[in-house]
Amino acid sequence: MHISAAFASKDKWADHLRSAGLRVLVAAPQDNVDLSRVEFAICWQPEPGILQRCPNLKAIQSMGAGVDSLLQDTTLPRHVPLLRVVDPLMAQRMATWVLWGVINIQRKCDAYWHAQLEGRWDKSVENYRNIDNAELKVGVMGLGVMGGAVADTLASLGYTVSSWTRRARSVGDGCKIFNYHGDAGLSEFLSNLDIVVCLLPLTPETKGILNAQLFRTLPRGAAVINAARGGHCVEGDLLNALDDGHLSCAVLDVFASEPLPQTSPLWKHPKVRVFPHVSSMTNIETAIEQMLHNRECVLSGALERLNRDLIVDWDSGY
Amino acid sequence: MHISAAFASKDKWADHLRSAGLRVLVAAPQDNVDLSRVEFAICWQPEPGILQRCPNLKAIQSMGAGVDSLLQDTTLPRHVPLLRVVDPLMAQRMATWVLWGVINIQRKCDAYWHAQLEGRWDKSVENYRNIDNAELKVGVMGLGVMGGAVADTLASLGYTVSSWTRRARSVGDGCKIFNYHGDAGLSEFLSNLDIVVCLLPLTPETKGILNAQLFRTLPRGAAVINAARGGHCVEGDLLNALDDGHLSCAVLDVFASEPLPQTSPLWKHPKVRVFPHVSSMTNIETAIEQMLHNRECVLSGALERLNRDLIVDWDSGY
Repeated sequence: MHISAAFASKDKWADHLRSAGLRVLVAAPQDNVDLSRVEFAICWQPEPGILQRCPNLKAIQSMGAGVDSLLQDTTLPRHVPLLRVVDPLMAQRMATWVLWGVINIQRKCDAYWHAQLEGRWDKSVENYRNIDNAELKVGVMGLGVMGGAVADTLASLGYTVSSWTRRARSVGDGCKIFNYHGDAGLSEFLSNLDIVVCLLPLTPETKGILNAQLFRTLPRGAAVINAARGGHCVEGDLLNALDDGHLSCAVLDVFASEPLPQTSPLWKHPKVRVFPHVSSMTNIETAIEQMLHNRECVLSGALERLNRDLIVDWDSGY
Repeated sequence: MHISAAFASKDKWADHLRSAGLRVLVAAPQDNVDLSRVEFAICWQPEPGILQRCPNLKAIQSMGAGVDSLLQDTTLPRHVPLLRVVDPLMAQRMATWVLWGVINIQRKCDAYWHAQLEGRWDKSVENYRNIDNAELKVGVMGLGVMGGAVADTLASLGYTVSSWTRRARSVGDGCKIFNYHGDAGLSEFLSNLDIVVCLLPLTPETKGILNAQLFRTLPRGAAVINAARGGHCVEGDLLNALDDGHLSCAVLDVFASEPLPQTSPLWKHPKVRVFPHVSSMTNIETAIEQMLHNRECVLSGALERLNRDLIVDWDSGY
C-alpha cells in the first residue's frame, strides 16, 4: 500500500486524509520515523531537510496555494513534481476580501466609524460626493489565480483596473484590464493609481517590492492593500510613507513575521487595518479533493492528467 | 421667459441651475416673493403649502430619487407631474455601499478591527473558515432602481440573493433572484436569510416594516442593512432585537430623525454601524442634466419624451 505523509502541525488535515482512506504518517521533526516508504508528501512548513529522508518520494504536495515557505528549503528533492492546491473559491474568497478593502478605502468607512465613535454626524467625510467606481483607479500586481480573480471582479463592478506582471501578458480582445510589465512598466503603472493591490507570488524577484521607492512612485494619497506575503513589503518603508502623509492607508493581511509581533507599530497605527492572514483560507474539503486527485495521478504515473495550474515551476517558483 | 424655482436650503443647486441658463427663484418659506409665474418647481423639503402659491406650475421636480419628504405635504398640486432624478451611478453608488456592508458582515471585519485595537492576532474570528459568497443568503426588500442594482450586483458576485416586493414581479428567464411578494410571502422570504437589506420606497404600506415581528421572523444571528429611509425602521424594536441577541448587527445609513440625535443609543451600540445618510449621494451634475431634460419636456408639452422611471405615480408614491 502506498504511504503518504503529512509534514505540518495541522492534525485535522491528517484526520481528513485518513477519512478518505489514505495511510498517513504525520511526521514532526523530532520523530525518528522511517520515511523510506513515503511516496506522497503533504507539506506546509516542513522541517528543512526532512524530505531527504524520503528516497521513494514521487511528489511534494503543498497544503496551500503559495509554496514560498516550501521553497525556502534548498534541500527539497527537485526531481519530483511540486504541487499545490488552488480552488476557484479560494480566488473568490480573496476577491471578496480585496473588494471589501477597496470599498472601505473608496467610501471612507473607517473615517465614518471614527465619527460614529465620537457621536459626530459628519456628511463631509467624503466631501459631499461619493467617488464612483469608474473614478477609482486600482492596480493589481500579479495576475495569477488570485490576482486574476481580483482584477476581473473589480473590472466587472466598473472600477478602472490595471495590472502589473513581471513578464508581459497577452490579454484577450475586449479585456478592459491594461497590463504593464517588467521593471520598465512599473513606474507608469504606479504613477496613476489610487490603490495598489499586491497579489504577486513571493520569489527572489518580488521580495521587498513594496518599498520606499515604489511608495514614492504612487501618487500622494494612494493606498496599499497587501494580501500576498509579508515578504513583499518593507514594513519600515510603509510606516514612513504613511507617517509622512504620502500614503493615506494600508490594509494588510500578511506580515514579515506572523503572528504580527506585539511590538509592531502596525497594530496601533491609525492608518492601518490589520488582518491575521485570513483573506482567503484554504477550504479543507476542497483542498483534500484536489490532493487526492493529484496523488492518484502521480502514483498511477498519469502526470498528464494533473491540472497544469497546480504544478509549480521549480525555477520561477510559482 | 419661463421661471423655475428651487425650494430647498441648498443654494449650490440654484447656482448650478443658473449656470445652465435658467432663471431661478430660490424661495425660503419666510420670503414674500411672488411665485405666480413659476412653472417648474425644484424641491427637496419645501415648506408645506408653498407650492399652492404657484398657480402656473407645470411640474414638481424632486432633487433626489426619493419623494417621501415631498409627499408628506398633502396640499401638493396633484394635477401636475411629480418628477425625480435617478441616475444609473446613484444605483451603482448604493450597490457599492451595500456590498461593503454585506462583506463587512460576511467576513467579520468589525471583529477583526476590535481584535486589532486589542493587539490580538486572532485567526478564530471567522471560525477558521471564510463564508463563501454562495453560502450567504441575502434578501433585498424593494426592486426599484436601487434595490434592483443591489440585487443584481450581489447575484453577479455569486451571493444567494432573493427579493421581496409588495406586488409580484415578473422576472426574466435565467434570473437567479427568486422573488417573494406581499404579506403572504414575507415570512418565507425572511425565514432563511443571513442578511436583509431594505431598499423599499417609504409609503404608508412600508412605514415601520422593519419591526419586532419582522426581526423575530429572521433566523437568529441575522443582520439588517437599512439604506432606504429611517421611517422603515422601528428603532426601539431594532435595539431590542440586537440586545436580546437575536440579531447580530445592523448597518444603518438612515434614521427616524436626521441628523441622528446625540441621545440615540444607536451611536454607541457595539453591534451598529452608523452612516450619516451617505450611501448614495446625488451627483449634482448628473441630476441637473436630468432636471434640465425634464423641464424641457414639460415646458414644450412633450411629456411623452420623459423617462417613465422618473415620473412618480401619485397614488403608489414611487
